[in-house]
Amino acid sequence: MAVHLAARGGVDLGGTKIQAIVADGAHKVLGQARQPTPTEGGPPAVIAALERALREAAGQAGIEPSELLGVGIGAPGAVDTEAGTLAQAGNLPDWRDPYPLASELGGRLGTAIRLGNDVQVATDAEFTLGAAREFSSLLGVFWGTGVGGGIVLDGRPWAGLGAAGEIGHIVVKRDGAQCPCGRRGCMEAYAGRRAMEGRARKAVEEGHKTHLFKIMEEKGRDRLTSGIWARALQRGDDLAGKLIDEAIEAIGVAVASANNLLDVQAIIIGGGLGVRFGEPFARRIEDAMMPHLFVDHRPPVVRVAELGDLGGALGASLLVTR
Amino acid sequence: MAVHLAARGGVDLGGTKIQAIVADGAHKVLGQARQPTPTEGGPPAVIAALERALREAAGQAGIEPSELLGVGIGAPGAVDTEAGTLAQAGNLPDWRDPYPLASELGGRLGTAIRLGNDVQVATDAEFTLGAAREFSSLLGVFWGTGVGGGIVLDGRPWAGLGAAGEIGHIVVKRDGAQCPCGRRGCMEAYAGRRAMEGRARKAVEEGHKTHLFKIMEEKGRDRLTSGIWARALQRGDDLAGKLIDEAIEAIGVAVASANNLLDVQAIIIGGGLGVRFGEPFARRIEDAMMPHLFVDHRPPVVRVAELGDLGGALGASLLVTR
Repeated sequence: MAVHLAARGGVDLGGTKIQAIVADGAHKVLGQARQPTPTEGGPPAVIAALERALREAAGQAGIEPSELLGVGIGAPGAVDTEAGTLAQAGNLPDWRDPYPLASELGGRLGTAIRLGNDVQVATDAEFTLGAAREFSSLLGVFWGTGVGGGIVLDGRPWAGLGAAGEIGHIVVKRDGAQCPCGRRGCMEAYAGRRAMEGRARKAVEEGHKTHLFKIMEEKGRDRLTSGIWARALQRGDDLAGKLIDEAIEAIGVAVASANNLLDVQAIIIGGGLGVRFGEPFARRIEDAMMPHLFVDHRPPVVRVAELGDLGGALGASLLVTR
Repeated sequence: MAVHLAARGGVDLGGTKIQAIVADGAHKVLGQARQPTPTEGGPPAVIAALERALREAAGQAGIEPSELLGVGIGAPGAVDTEAGTLAQAGNLPDWRDPYPLASELGGRLGTAIRLGNDVQVATDAEFTLGAAREFSSLLGVFWGTGVGGGIVLDGRPWAGLGAAGEIGHIVVKRDGAQCPCGRRGCMEAYAGRRAMEGRARKAVEEGHKTHLFKIMEEKGRDRLTSGIWARALQRGDDLAGKLIDEAIEAIGVAVASANNLLDVQAIIIGGGLGVRFGEPFARRIEDAMMPHLFVDHRPPVVRVAELGDLGGALGASLLVTR
């Protein structure tokens, strides 16, 4: 019963999937469930899917949702923690205006909901429970569809006015490649999976050869997932190799710039591509960072995120007792 | 007598000049003095000049140095606040190894000496007393021989592991121009006065025309000071205009990158060139920043530093009661 009293929920609300967990007071996962993120139906459809995922995870843990100490949600877009609203979530269906996510979902589940930024809670998870446990200052770099960043300074998350950590939009090349954000030369324009797919398609149009899209068809996917990139590299695909080289170079430059500004103890590499490529690629990012690091005799530690797929949901569950 | 008890000294220890002040508890300047920074004689010569400047400033204030609550020094290079040592001060004569600046100068003056980083104390001065008084998070950009940066987050200086704030070494162009630091594409490679002089000399060698070096001769100087750049712009000098345009573009890109990461309330532009060029150029930097700002509907406030020449020394005096 003591465990039940301390149990809390956590959800990583992504553009592709909803990952929910229920954990005990020692952050042990008691139940987990996954739902595809609805692609239509607006906030009500997303909230229904969140409810399903949380009820399933709680069921696995043998707990009623209303028994939970609370539920934290790591969400993309503009989070207003105080108001409990989410706005401008471009990867969620029709979710532009602020919508009262916390009160709507809380009413259905009978427990308190606390919202946080998805990347920041994933960073916090690595800081509190994962690869950065022994550090007090760190930069989390989440290399996936885009490249997000989270900051912990002196043991506390730094969110700025609400939008800090956009390491993907550090400029690495003035007048450089077009970024999905509409600007030019951002790191994400070279390293984000969405941008990399665009570069690959353009190269194919220009006559370059690659296995990337054949592997995509074989796997029955409609976009270049982390697994497809990994498979293409295994097959020695030249174009995939070149685009990944450019991505790593861009990440290295941006991380070095960020560290020249922040001088943190550790850089944690997470995200779909970051975790999939793992340790050897963390070393390549470190190598790409070194030539641009101003204080290069004591570089920050570069590590791969430890918590894997559940990191975001675990980090969100930490919001409950914050 | 109450004022005397609260009086404290502050010194901006620069590569060209030593600026000392004595201020009362309300930060009113009671006395000030300036000495050229010795170009030889190592730490002992610098310490003798510091002593002269502080004795003169105290004399103007009608106070014995031993009556001061303490003296703060904003110094370039690697400051160890706890140990009271300064090392690797490249702009000071023969000052590489850690030297016990605090104890040596404190013994001569009969008061406690506290060391800080020159750019950080200047940022702190603008935060506490100057252009950023009403903000709790800011980035100070000191545009001079190099381009230094200072950070205040949530009302407190952020120094990282001791070397945070190197905004001049944010990369603005991968594989770009050579920086005086030896790396490539740093913002300072385009915007630092030393680098700009190098670019001007190279352009002249390549046959470009400019008044810059003629004005330098007229003024009897051996390097391109802020005043010389300002004069050349007034005369409509094409090369000077083009190099300043590139400097502003580079500062805008780096400041935008920094703000995408930190999301602060205000950017304060100081330093020799920043203060000399003033408000119109702060607006130009703001314009150059905008296209790269990720959250561009609420850009940070961009202001010129208010405290001018005495800002560094005033900021150093704040170290006394920290």
